[in-house]
Amino acid sequence: MTGFPPPDDKLIAHPQSNYFSFPKLRWTVCHIRELLPTTRISRGIGAPDPLPYALDNGINDISFMPMGSDTQMNWRESLAANYTDGLLILHKGKIVYEYYNGCLSETGKHAAMSMTKSLTGLLAEVLVAEGKLDDEATVDSLVPELKNSAFGSATVRQVMDMTTALDYSEDYADPEADIWQYSAAASPLPKPSDYSGPEGYFEYLQTVEQNGDHGDAFGYRTVNSDALGWIIARVSGKSVANLLSERLWNPLGTEQDAYMTIDAKGTPFAGGGLSAGLRDLGRIGLLMLNKGKYKNRQLFPESVVNAIQAGGDKKAFAKAGYTTLPGGSYRSMWWIFNNANGAYAARGVHGQTIYIDPTANMVLVRFASFPNASNSKIDPTSLPLYQAVADYLMNRD
Amino acid sequence: MTGFPPPDDKLIAHPQSNYFSFPKLRWTVCHIRELLPTTRISRGIGAPDPLPYALDNGINDISFMPMGSDTQMNWRESLAANYTDGLLILHKGKIVYEYYNGCLSETGKHAAMSMTKSLTGLLAEVLVAEGKLDDEATVDSLVPELKNSAFGSATVRQVMDMTTALDYSEDYADPEADIWQYSAAASPLPKPSDYSGPEGYFEYLQTVEQNGDHGDAFGYRTVNSDALGWIIARVSGKSVANLLSERLWNPLGTEQDAYMTIDAKGTPFAGGGLSAGLRDLGRIGLLMLNKGKYKNRQLFPESVVNAIQAGGDKKAFAKAGYTTLPGGSYRSMWWIFNNANGAYAARGVHGQTIYIDPTANMVLVRFASFPNASNSKIDPTSLPLYQAVADYLMNRD
Repeated sequence: MTGFPPPDDKLIAHPQSNYFSFPKLRWTVCHIRELLPTTRISRGIGAPDPLPYALDNGINDISFMPMGSDTQMNWRESLAANYTDGLLILHKGKIVYEYYNGCLSETGKHAAMSMTKSLTGLLAEVLVAEGKLDDEATVDSLVPELKNSAFGSATVRQVMDMTTALDYSEDYADPEADIWQYSAAASPLPKPSDYSGPEGYFEYLQTVEQNGDHGDAFGYRTVNSDALGWIIARVSGKSVANLLSERLWNPLGTEQDAYMTIDAKGTPFAGGGLSAGLRDLGRIGLLMLNKGKYKNRQLFPESVVNAIQAGGDKKAFAKAGYTTLPGGSYRSMWWIFNNANGAYAARGVHGQTIYIDPTANMVLVRFASFPNASNSKIDPTSLPLYQAVADYLMNRD
Repeated sequence: MTGFPPPDDKLIAHPQSNYFSFPKLRWTVCHIRELLPTTRISRGIGAPDPLPYALDNGINDISFMPMGSDTQMNWRESLAANYTDGLLILHKGKIVYEYYNGCLSETGKHAAMSMTKSLTGLLAEVLVAEGKLDDEATVDSLVPELKNSAFGSATVRQVMDMTTALDYSEDYADPEADIWQYSAAASPLPKPSDYSGPEGYFEYLQTVEQNGDHGDAFGYRTVNSDALGWIIARVSGKSVANLLSERLWNPLGTEQDAYMTIDAKGTPFAGGGLSAGLRDLGRIGLLMLNKGKYKNRQLFPESVVNAIQAGGDKKAFAKAGYTTLPGGSYRSMWWIFNNANGAYAARGVHGQTIYIDPTANMVLVRFASFPNASNSKIDPTSLPLYQAVADYLMNRD
């Protein structure tokens, strides 16, 4: 949308329009709250704590070899190839590179998509470390409403690591896939008069049936994140949005409130509803890199990050067949790469990432609006790039 | 809504529920963004500029005589009688009293309702003072799309002062009133399949017909504010929300972003869509009291406030028959009281006000959720209270 009011041919009409289609997507990712009801993740009202800068123009000269290519790609080409809306690189706690494009500016927010899951997983891991959540308990012991669903017999850990065995398809290409019924239930907009399905995330979750044995295989299903959101809300008495405010946005000196989309009952979308500022996700990446320490305060035990970095079940992960992530795993809703630097990441469709490289002492946050949702299409031009940046920063020192 | 997730009997279900009915209203006024799409009014990302405090407990001992009563009401009774959610009193630039109740806290936001109009009117008056908007021009010369509507032949000033002659009823008690067609057009939610009316504020405004001569009488019609919003957007190239950010929220050192509800085309509701923090509206009140001066910077010419304080056409106003506002007038979408102190105010249904008393050097901001929308029901227990506070502060000095 350009100009105000935008001319009709530039209008991304809401809400019947397919606003996640490309190129509308390029506007939508910065404007979710203008399309849907949302709930705030408050930063509080204190002064933000500015991140220090040590900009390094040498980063602009980095080139790398994309996966499956025999031609080097240079820095500028990579920004375009990845439809980069924002890119922040922190090294040793300082911003060494910062870039905004498309719909994003430093005062704007961008959809985090499934990076939301990683923050939900982080909250759960924090509650586990603090003894408030038993990850070996079965879900029905914490949320009895889920007793008759597939989740009831799974452990909290299986939900956190998405090794639940669900009769549930998240194939967006299949119009009959369960994800569409899930989306319909979750919509905060008025239901069609003939709608008789579940209302909201939590009612839907109760209808998911089991298929197979929990723990056998990794299966990337967003419903796990929302089940975990329910568990977190039950254990803490707070919504995921309010807990993110209390545990992260408020104590971290963030610059901007964040927000989450919600269903018609006000439940935040723990599996994908977050929108946030680029530098604020950089702060969260730094908190992970520093194992929960912010300034001289330990916001959560080191064991939280250690547990995530250690990764999940590689065999269970391998069965899912992610060709760009050989040897990887999924733990507490973070993606663990099997690389020499021990990197791990929050990842979301269309190219969103918080990439944490403990060896290079680097956090890289990227917002993007890549036309294809699947990260398997985006990894070839991005994962080798991140490694090249890490190599550059390590060699520079 | 209490708890998370709230039990069904505490749920203020969205969006078919009548969430502005009492007592749901008491929750709704702090949670508009959870019910509707909204657009941000950015404060920017700098540190807020804290308001200084000089709390005066003596205010708790103020009592006053409500209009039409023969019994004094004390301070505590007045807070309850007015369903006060937030009350901020500034004297000589310092906070002397601050109170939160119900759904509101110092980090929360509350619906400003028709106080939004006053900020829209302020923006217009600023553009007039800066020579960017000719208030004697007819609307059709600025917004040709309104040529065939009632607004086309009115002057910008008549729109600003709501002396346009419109064939338009805003009687909420009448199910056939035009306001309901306006609401339907303005809704950002999907239209019913059989809907064939205008889409959004601006399309609706083009359908409003003239009835009588412009300039004869004051007629409180929200459509004037949205027509003014269109004029402002056309002249400035920015939406009212973005201009409020640029001209007020950003330079004033506010603590919180604010937001506005929008229609399905992204047009902010210039007639009533604002939600904001209590102290941030206090900052705007102070800016008015100080005639556009903030710290040592003149954010807009003094003439802006002088024009508003001077008031509108009292004869035109008298015809509207506001019994609690004898001798009053309406100017640039601010209400001017005919009182000894020269007080004027932004006002919104259910008891919202920014009350500015230049003689007492006082700004009073109140958020409320009074069960009845009409300020004529709320004025008897609030206007004499504001005067009593002004008297107290003046006598104290």
